[in-house]
Amino acid sequence: MKAAFMYAAGDVRVEEVPDPVLKAPTDAIVRVVRSCICGSDLHPYHSLPATPEGTTMGHEFVGVVEDTGSEVSSIRKGDFVIAPFAVSDGTCEFCREGLHTSCLHGGFWNDPGIGTQGGQAEAVRVPQADGTLVAVPGIGEDSAHLASLLTLSDVYGTGWHAARTARVGEGDTVAVVGDGAVGLMAVLAAKQLGAEQIILMGRHKARTDLGREYGATDVVAERGDEGIAKVRELTGGRGVRKVLEAVGHLPAYEQSLGIVRDGGTVSRVGVPQYADAQIGWPFFGRNLTLTGGPAPVRGYIEQLLPAVLDGSVDPGKVFDRTIGIDEVPAGYAAMDAREALKVMIRM
Amino acid sequence: MKAAFMYAAGDVRVEEVPDPVLKAPTDAIVRVVRSCICGSDLHPYHSLPATPEGTTMGHEFVGVVEDTGSEVSSIRKGDFVIAPFAVSDGTCEFCREGLHTSCLHGGFWNDPGIGTQGGQAEAVRVPQADGTLVAVPGIGEDSAHLASLLTLSDVYGTGWHAARTARVGEGDTVAVVGDGAVGLMAVLAAKQLGAEQIILMGRHKARTDLGREYGATDVVAERGDEGIAKVRELTGGRGVRKVLEAVGHLPAYEQSLGIVRDGGTVSRVGVPQYADAQIGWPFFGRNLTLTGGPAPVRGYIEQLLPAVLDGSVDPGKVFDRTIGIDEVPAGYAAMDAREALKVMIRM
Repeated sequence: MKAAFMYAAGDVRVEEVPDPVLKAPTDAIVRVVRSCICGSDLHPYHSLPATPEGTTMGHEFVGVVEDTGSEVSSIRKGDFVIAPFAVSDGTCEFCREGLHTSCLHGGFWNDPGIGTQGGQAEAVRVPQADGTLVAVPGIGEDSAHLASLLTLSDVYGTGWHAARTARVGEGDTVAVVGDGAVGLMAVLAAKQLGAEQIILMGRHKARTDLGREYGATDVVAERGDEGIAKVRELTGGRGVRKVLEAVGHLPAYEQSLGIVRDGGTVSRVGVPQYADAQIGWPFFGRNLTLTGGPAPVRGYIEQLLPAVLDGSVDPGKVFDRTIGIDEVPAGYAAMDAREALKVMIRM
Repeated sequence: MKAAFMYAAGDVRVEEVPDPVLKAPTDAIVRVVRSCICGSDLHPYHSLPATPEGTTMGHEFVGVVEDTGSEVSSIRKGDFVIAPFAVSDGTCEFCREGLHTSCLHGGFWNDPGIGTQGGQAEAVRVPQADGTLVAVPGIGEDSAHLASLLTLSDVYGTGWHAARTARVGEGDTVAVVGDGAVGLMAVLAAKQLGAEQIILMGRHKARTDLGREYGATDVVAERGDEGIAKVRELTGGRGVRKVLEAVGHLPAYEQSLGIVRDGGTVSRVGVPQYADAQIGWPFFGRNLTLTGGPAPVRGYIEQLLPAVLDGSVDPGKVFDRTIGIDEVPAGYAAMDAREALKVMIRM
């Protein structure tokens, strides 16, 4: 089969590798139907040191189960499944509480810990298949919902996590920092949770237009002090009660502190590309809360699925380009150049 | 009257100054009955640069109203009152939401913004008297409750804030970092809110003994990696769900990250003596929440008062030394040398 590998910053290649095989009785083999490239894949695309053996890529996919280990009981060959971006057993104390990303027997795709490649491949060995995969009955490979179902692997659940950990509720004022796919999904989630004012901070008109479709009431293209002034102007000088930060770079965090109201919450779902940052008096003195993290999307899929299937939401619109597996290197380049918002891979 | 001034690190003096007078129609003059020295007063005691004009000190006091401005309506001459550590008007949008420390017309004692000295003085001009002061009917200057009432100025409300912002609830596992007065009050608050396991981290036996009286189920004297290992040992390897950080120095924050369970919350009420600190992947990846801040104690007084007055709690035990105003410099030295837990000043 074919799979994508990254060998260094900017160096993505598609190679022929052996098909995956079952290794543990809790494994499943999934033939990938749709996969995609994530904004977070661009972080190594900018910074990965030269890696002679290459690293497998991708962590979002939907597909069809081809084989299951002897201990797999909840899914079976032929099932159409959604794979969340983290592997989880579904039974440990963290999974039972809904924090699947801290699963005691789980891990992240492409991580040596779980020893399997991610979704930018024609097939994937899925550890802890019973806990990890969600079967969706009645979905065929020609379903009109494939793109939206694929967002449940990561970006929709991640946007939902941002809004949920920020405790967005009826009548809330919210700002979303970043107009990437996760930012747009955070807009959608805030809208679904009842936010009244949703300010989307982004400067790419096609994206912010889609953000308006998902529920943004205002768009602020300015950044830095100008952006802060604009958000404050839109909120009676006070700032918003909830900031959903969907970028991960330090300026986005600093922007978030500038636009949040005293007593408010900054929820980050962009993977931070920094270690230390300001949490001294300018943060503390205003009684701010910092929350968020990698989304336990596994726990959100059942909740978000019905609205996807009945068409009342259409998160799949974040995919504005579809490519084949051989074009994955070009897909990275297009997302990096911001020519594409989010690239779907059709296998 | 006499008032304490700090002129530099370690240099506290008591001086004769003019009695305060009403300046605004919303002011009151309060004759101080009891005041005290705060753990946070030790921060400038360690670091204040030479200040030729000196700075007034103190932010906790109870006393008797001597005079009120023409617009003061809810308190009157002769009332026994508690003064929270922040001035607030009680009517702005933040006060109405219970975030009195962000009051649009408030401020902190000894701050040029509100232009009045704090509680380490025989009398104080209180701005925004209606919003700031809480009258307690039936309390005389010989009341047995004076010490406990004084804790409602700051430390009890601050410990309560730590537990409340961490959302401590029934059956929770909690660790309190720091065995100062605020840490001990955080133990009491966690107990009142239903925590099942309360681990107090501190190494001063007299203090941790009082902590056990307030509800600590375990005491960990070790610090750093050893302390982290000990707390994890006490919690099945996972850490506690809620950490109440009552110190303010960077190692206490780092300790907090080490002992908190994935998905848990660190609530800080120790004023951070640092600006930047770790909030990168080691924080984000575990879905931690950071919250807390200066406590809006004004909003907690009515709630905490009944248990103080009926004697079911005795927060006043944190005062283990009582001095007169002339002994304030010695009081600072005693707290700094950890000979005294918290020093009360009897006027």
